[in-house]
Amino acid sequence: MSAKIRLYVEHPLGAGQSVPLDRDQAHYLFGVMRLADGAPVALFNGRDGEWQAGVAEAGKRGGTLVCQEQSKPLQLPPDLWLMFAPIKKARTDFIVEKAAEMGAARILPVQTEFTNSERIRQDRLQAHAVEAAEQCGGTYVPDVAELQKLPRLLDQWPAGRELMFCDEAEAGNTLQLAAETQKNAPWAILIGPEGGFSEAERKRLHNHPQSHVVSLGPRILRADTAAVAAMTLWQQALGDW
Amino acid sequence: MSAKIRLYVEHPLGAGQSVPLDRDQAHYLFGVMRLADGAPVALFNGRDGEWQAGVAEAGKRGGTLVCQEQSKPLQLPPDLWLMFAPIKKARTDFIVEKAAEMGAARILPVQTEFTNSERIRQDRLQAHAVEAAEQCGGTYVPDVAELQKLPRLLDQWPAGRELMFCDEAEAGNTLQLAAETQKNAPWAILIGPEGGFSEAERKRLHNHPQSHVVSLGPRILRADTAAVAAMTLWQQALGDW
Repeated sequence: MSAKIRLYVEHPLGAGQSVPLDRDQAHYLFGVMRLADGAPVALFNGRDGEWQAGVAEAGKRGGTLVCQEQSKPLQLPPDLWLMFAPIKKARTDFIVEKAAEMGAARILPVQTEFTNSERIRQDRLQAHAVEAAEQCGGTYVPDVAELQKLPRLLDQWPAGRELMFCDEAEAGNTLQLAAETQKNAPWAILIGPEGGFSEAERKRLHNHPQSHVVSLGPRILRADTAAVAAMTLWQQALGDW
Repeated sequence: MSAKIRLYVEHPLGAGQSVPLDRDQAHYLFGVMRLADGAPVALFNGRDGEWQAGVAEAGKRGGTLVCQEQSKPLQLPPDLWLMFAPIKKARTDFIVEKAAEMGAARILPVQTEFTNSERIRQDRLQAHAVEAAEQCGGTYVPDVAELQKLPRLLDQWPAGRELMFCDEAEAGNTLQLAAETQKNAPWAILIGPEGGFSEAERKRLHNHPQSHVVSLGPRILRADTAAVAAMTLWQQALGDW
């Protein structure tokens, strides 16, 4: 039997290992979920896989779990970045959640010419990524980066990382990723803002030596839909699906 | 130049055709968007393509637009049904919106053994589909059916319609749709509820003569994520992408 409640912790996990809980975790497990001594909880920390643990000590402000046995090995996602221009709050949250579920390794909010938001709450987005990883059964939590400007990111583009760029203005280019690159190569997917990219940005992206322009069909997709669709194409062609 | 505001209407569209507006439409165009006489609006009705129209009469409780010229031909989506088990309100709304954006022809909420909701607001979901079609530039609005029980729908399954069934419990089956069926065949995609399908349902679906079991990767996807991912795989293999 495996525990239904999954919790991300930072503490090392291993057989017999005690894991201390902070106030929020204790409130969730004992206040909200009403777990009693001995109740099962699944733990993961992004490094040691998933472990079945039991409640050893339940308090109002803290507590302790003890690891019993490993229930899943660590499964790292493919080396895929999801880059997107932040939009309205709820949709930005959705994109982060979807990126974690779909198996992105890193989530990078980028500011483009037509991006409205000047700032993001990185801590809140990171918490969303944790929650999505807890929910989807993953053993890894993608890192959410701070907001950065797209031109700067392109100036410092890492050698060898391919860039899949979804351009609304580009019709008919279907994906031939499998033929273009090897499995296990590092990739990034860039999703534009609701208003699309500017002419200058499009030109720069088209001229980027590692860019691959991909079309997502004849209808205009919202950014959160486009993110899932693009990650699906990538995962099926080159990822862990 | 084409109008930025797109409006779905039921009235026939054609060169010189007058289109009367109801109270809600008049409120939106003249009260919210502040359009004046002569302002451009793009119209579609799901039958006559997209037409550029101009404001001929603006009132508080009504008004008239006059069609000028067709700006897009009618583009019907492929004959794809999206079947899903309704979940929490916001996520159900999202699924309907995504189905419209992704090009489903019909949206069918189905009640499974582990579906919580006993009823849906069909009118509200239909309004979401209209809004998504207005937003995504489509010329067609998918029809949202009333909630029906899955076994009943399977009892009356239409001859010749293939069924893509996304089973969390099924690992490793990647999609080979292209090889299995012809383009233009009618299809349906079935997305399970958050708790998955029951044993009896899974058995029945696996035994269904037209069913194709498909895996959506090693992580468990939320129903709205799974809907977009499944439609992406289908559209790329067999649809209009």
